[in-house]
Amino acid sequence: MASHSSISDTRVCPPVSNMEEPAADSITLEVLTEARETVTCSPLGVINTPMIPWCQTTLPLHVPCNIYLKLENMQRTGSFKIRGVANQFSRRSKGDHFVTMSAGNYGKSFGYASKHFGIKGKVVMPDTAPVSRSLLIQQTFGIEVERVPTSCLLNAVNRCVREDNMTFMHSYNDPDLIAGHASLGFEILEVVPNPEVVVVSCGGGGLLAGVAAAIKLSGCEKTRIYGVEPEEACTMYRSFIEKRPVGMDSKSIAAGLAPPSAGALPYVLCQKYVEEIVLVTDEEIKSAVSTLYKAGLVVEPSGCAALAALVNGKIPDVTGKNVVVVLSGGNIGKDELTKFPD
Amino acid sequence: MASHSSISDTRVCPPVSNMEEPAADSITLEVLTEARETVTCSPLGVINTPMIPWCQTTLPLHVPCNIYLKLENMQRTGSFKIRGVANQFSRRSKGDHFVTMSAGNYGKSFGYASKHFGIKGKVVMPDTAPVSRSLLIQQTFGIEVERVPTSCLLNAVNRCVREDNMTFMHSYNDPDLIAGHASLGFEILEVVPNPEVVVVSCGGGGLLAGVAAAIKLSGCEKTRIYGVEPEEACTMYRSFIEKRPVGMDSKSIAAGLAPPSAGALPYVLCQKYVEEIVLVTDEEIKSAVSTLYKAGLVVEPSGCAALAALVNGKIPDVTGKNVVVVLSGGNIGKDELTKFPD
Repeated sequence: MASHSSISDTRVCPPVSNMEEPAADSITLEVLTEARETVTCSPLGVINTPMIPWCQTTLPLHVPCNIYLKLENMQRTGSFKIRGVANQFSRRSKGDHFVTMSAGNYGKSFGYASKHFGIKGKVVMPDTAPVSRSLLIQQTFGIEVERVPTSCLLNAVNRCVREDNMTFMHSYNDPDLIAGHASLGFEILEVVPNPEVVVVSCGGGGLLAGVAAAIKLSGCEKTRIYGVEPEEACTMYRSFIEKRPVGMDSKSIAAGLAPPSAGALPYVLCQKYVEEIVLVTDEEIKSAVSTLYKAGLVVEPSGCAALAALVNGKIPDVTGKNVVVVLSGGNIGKDELTKFPD
Repeated sequence: MASHSSISDTRVCPPVSNMEEPAADSITLEVLTEARETVTCSPLGVINTPMIPWCQTTLPLHVPCNIYLKLENMQRTGSFKIRGVANQFSRRSKGDHFVTMSAGNYGKSFGYASKHFGIKGKVVMPDTAPVSRSLLIQQTFGIEVERVPTSCLLNAVNRCVREDNMTFMHSYNDPDLIAGHASLGFEILEVVPNPEVVVVSCGGGGLLAGVAAAIKLSGCEKTRIYGVEPEEACTMYRSFIEKRPVGMDSKSIAAGLAPPSAGALPYVLCQKYVEEIVLVTDEEIKSAVSTLYKAGLVVEPSGCAALAALVNGKIPDVTGKNVVVVLSGGNIGKDELTKFPD
């Protein structure tokens, strides 16, 4: 259990103006199956990424279980986000002008899709994000980036929606996005039909919710699905305790796992389908980055949290079990890598 | 065809004193099958590395063929060398004191095996090799390292053999080593039973010879096997022209592919089983390192040559074919990576 059980500094996150509160019962097996088809056939080239057994790696582990690594670091745009984006874009009017807020992998996938479909897009980004990230999105994908103080992010997006008539695309709290992410869950079941344990990192909770829903709705009732958050960015963990989606001043080396709040829809789905949220330290995440690098894989900090949880004994009762670990992204610069321990 | 057809600066490499000239007819299917068993069961933990289809990666390619990547960058000690070393050590007397010369992956595997078996070992290393490499081998594996000028390498090894009664272990010109490397060929055939094309990097030629022998002796007579060398370290390419194993002043960013000469036994086996040696530039190799990094894989320059050859159109007649590309190693420091283009 995490050391900081205080939840006094949590808060409920303010809504974005044009967002309807998405309903959990919209996430059915039929919807997810249809989304999987959309993702698979998407012109964005979403990849059915490799899933390799642990025994085909040099990764150190002292737990006698059968581990499979789902290599989403090899995904188009370098992370799982393109799955959800492929489904989101397929279900929006192509004539719209989209806006989102993201400093990370969602922004990259959003930009990639906008460029591919020739759609006008805008990314509102916190001014704390690296300038190189803004430049990548602007120059590679040719879409507008507005940098604002973190506290002004929502206001900036609201202004785009109200005054410029843009359509907001949420980076984790969106049923189409979550349904797209669920494709990863189906791919897992095609390789390991009845995994006993599945471990997934959790930021806003979109990936975790999608994967968990796909697996549970496919009939794998006994599969235990764990979400993993950084200790200092544990919005879903706290939401489970408070029994409502909450926000906090998140901070972590795993920036993709440190959004200001847990998603409302992901929260409801995770409550329903996820066994437990476990926490890892930034040091454990850093160590996992280096371990994976030495094993031949480029994985970003956010992409390593699930592995960090497993190797540090945070996942209960895994002996003798089939355990799937999702490595959710690989967007880490070479320069950034050199800051990690060997 | 390579631009520099001049072979005037080639030379025949001087022999090491206690080396018998290995015979090519010692490499039979039976010998290779037995070695494969030895390698598979070795206490060194040699890995049956993943082989993933190209369509499960984001790698750019404009050739319509079915490509499979053999991920030897995920191998124990970070390269294929441990395969041959596992077989070499199994066939030597454990009471011996071994010596080798290597500044790279062979030295690392040799050190790993020496430590594992508690055998006294010594690595003679050119003083041009990074000091960090000496320290790694000394500190991690506790074996002796002697740094000498490149021109004195053979003399230093000969002295160890004559005066200190050590047994020389060759890093590429050794039938036991080659038979061990052949295990990689058998693993390829287990995934793709009759590949039309197999592309393997070539330094001294041990890996290329072993893989080619395994595939051809297994009955895949129509499989075309290509070796890939750097343009400025093309000892096997020149050996094919001169019809004898020759040496040259090799230099390449891919240090593992730039030994002073082609191995005598590898040369004979490659003549017999390899279709052709093709050449790549250092720039093509560097670009492949970066491409693979972006695709989520850590691969060293020497490990990228086969891919560089394929993506740069050096391998003939691949359209519609099953093509296996061996990524032979992943030992590249984070600092070194930052020197490569994005």
